[in-house]
Amino acid sequence: MSKYWNDKVREIEPYVPGEQPKDRKYIKLNTNENPYPPSDKVLEAMRNAVNDDLKLYPDPTCSELISEIANYYKLDENEIFIGNGSDEILAFSFMTFFSKNKKILFPDISYTFYKVYAELFDLNYELVKLDDNFDIPLEELKKTNGGVIIPNPNAPTGKYINTESLKSLIEANKDRVVIIDEAYIDFGGQSMVKYIHEYDNLLVIQTLSKSRSLAGLRVGFALGHKDLIEGLNRIKNSINSYTIDRVALAGAKAAIQDSKYFEEITKKIVKTREKVVKELEKLDFRVLKSKSNFVFASHNSASGKFIYENLKCQGILVRYFDKERIDNFLRITIGTDEEMDILIGKLRFILSNN
Amino acid sequence: MSKYWNDKVREIEPYVPGEQPKDRKYIKLNTNENPYPPSDKVLEAMRNAVNDDLKLYPDPTCSELISEIANYYKLDENEIFIGNGSDEILAFSFMTFFSKNKKILFPDISYTFYKVYAELFDLNYELVKLDDNFDIPLEELKKTNGGVIIPNPNAPTGKYINTESLKSLIEANKDRVVIIDEAYIDFGGQSMVKYIHEYDNLLVIQTLSKSRSLAGLRVGFALGHKDLIEGLNRIKNSINSYTIDRVALAGAKAAIQDSKYFEEITKKIVKTREKVVKELEKLDFRVLKSKSNFVFASHNSASGKFIYENLKCQGILVRYFDKERIDNFLRITIGTDEEMDILIGKLRFILSNN
Repeated sequence: MSKYWNDKVREIEPYVPGEQPKDRKYIKLNTNENPYPPSDKVLEAMRNAVNDDLKLYPDPTCSELISEIANYYKLDENEIFIGNGSDEILAFSFMTFFSKNKKILFPDISYTFYKVYAELFDLNYELVKLDDNFDIPLEELKKTNGGVIIPNPNAPTGKYINTESLKSLIEANKDRVVIIDEAYIDFGGQSMVKYIHEYDNLLVIQTLSKSRSLAGLRVGFALGHKDLIEGLNRIKNSINSYTIDRVALAGAKAAIQDSKYFEEITKKIVKTREKVVKELEKLDFRVLKSKSNFVFASHNSASGKFIYENLKCQGILVRYFDKERIDNFLRITIGTDEEMDILIGKLRFILSNN
Repeated sequence: MSKYWNDKVREIEPYVPGEQPKDRKYIKLNTNENPYPPSDKVLEAMRNAVNDDLKLYPDPTCSELISEIANYYKLDENEIFIGNGSDEILAFSFMTFFSKNKKILFPDISYTFYKVYAELFDLNYELVKLDDNFDIPLEELKKTNGGVIIPNPNAPTGKYINTESLKSLIEANKDRVVIIDEAYIDFGGQSMVKYIHEYDNLLVIQTLSKSRSLAGLRVGFALGHKDLIEGLNRIKNSINSYTIDRVALAGAKAAIQDSKYFEEITKKIVKTREKVVKELEKLDFRVLKSKSNFVFASHNSASGKFIYENLKCQGILVRYFDKERIDNFLRITIGTDEEMDILIGKLRFILSNN
């Protein structure tokens, strides 16, 4: 605490990212990173971008990357916004579309950064309680509000809502923006991107961090009606004109181009996930139905905290949230088959010694 | 304009960066980029960081880069904050140290982004008018206020304030933060960094974009008392935990390490600047005394706009501000000797045909 901080800085509770301990080498299943490396074509494009031109500012409009995404999703270039990871786009979205005097809605068990943004920007918000099956109660999100944001699939539950249900949510919220945070959409879900021309209040946010194996690159993008994108650009250009460096722009463009590699690795992860779910169930875990690159599971007798701590001792990091309703759950990222075999072996050992 | 934008987005006037036209190849003297390439060691470090680890998040604490800067400036690690370019740090600083109810002060002719931040975050501010010599009237910045920010050297004037004068400014503002934006300090000025242990209300902001030839990398840093740095981290971690990608972290670290190269090229730029000033004066320009990598000059008979437009036709971009008091000036970045010889030749031609 410092006398030089303003009131907001004093009272805010910042987001806490998953731990990144440096004390030893872990099998990292705690921050939903992709276990497979980026495409070789991405690495090659990035190496080529490491040159003398780094003395010059990057293109602040990210036009080549935008053109690639436009081509991939069959959108116009003015329907695409690029950000420094999807977190930055989420922050800008809260600054652009939500107002202090109108209550925004999002699920109580969801990406915890939403609440941080709402607090930071002094927004009025209501946490909508997930039902007993950890499903988002869509009807609750249709009541009067100043905007809605949900992750699909949801994090940390991994549960997915189909496009028809989301369409009804968007239609019920005609005068406010509905943001679908699709960080995990590529692991078996269907993106809402195809409805962008149908609904001018729909904003879809995606990231290269998960399905494109590029958490280390910091590039995300938003897709929506050109007016929504213009609003985001107005905020971006009031904060930082150049958010994406030259090498990241080159890598991101190559990642979108190499859709074949992306499809291969996401399929592999989905296959591993389905195998892991069966193994966890055999070990007496309840596993929520996941369409993402992680599973959310609780054991029927051992506590989440106990398993988390023991896995850490054994060199495996998973994510544990010490939070009401989910404090018995673990969020486990899907790694390679080999990593997941080790996880299952360690779990068997820990649970048999419980 | 869209019904989905909130009031702030409707009313804000975003910052407009220097033009980056793609219609032809220009000699770019309009955005204060360094004419020399980054150090070979930087490029090598970046190439080595382009590897499979890009699938993993970068270190959100930027600890290796911070340790390098701490070593270079003889500071503690908790006295350093890393941002996505100094613009992001400026935005975060406005969010951390300034309050709506206390008026902040900055010069009227200065980095235009300050006003954008003040408007965006609903701050009360006063523009302090530069005197007739385009000097910042320091006494005016000592009156009651909620914080002060100035660039040193100032942009776009290039004028420098010595450390003794700045010390008296900081001492006169004991209860509020004084931010010295040192984007251009390495071209002949003395940094205030050596007074950080003396004043807990001093925040110094620097960037790798100018003196380290890395505008394309997007890395800046702030130096100050650990409580100020903690405040910045609280805001950063409420917006985006991972703002700097893995390759940028590696490049920035190498850039700080290779101080020999940095000293060489900054010396070269200073030498070229002094030569250019003489040439401009011979051509009947009034040139403000600059300690930065640009000069701010007005011609005694031809208008700034006329010269700007004719230089553009001739393939040379300089910065022209269509703004009261400075609408006859040009801000000209110092390029290589060869580039500046071409500039002087073109100016001679344009002025003789006026």
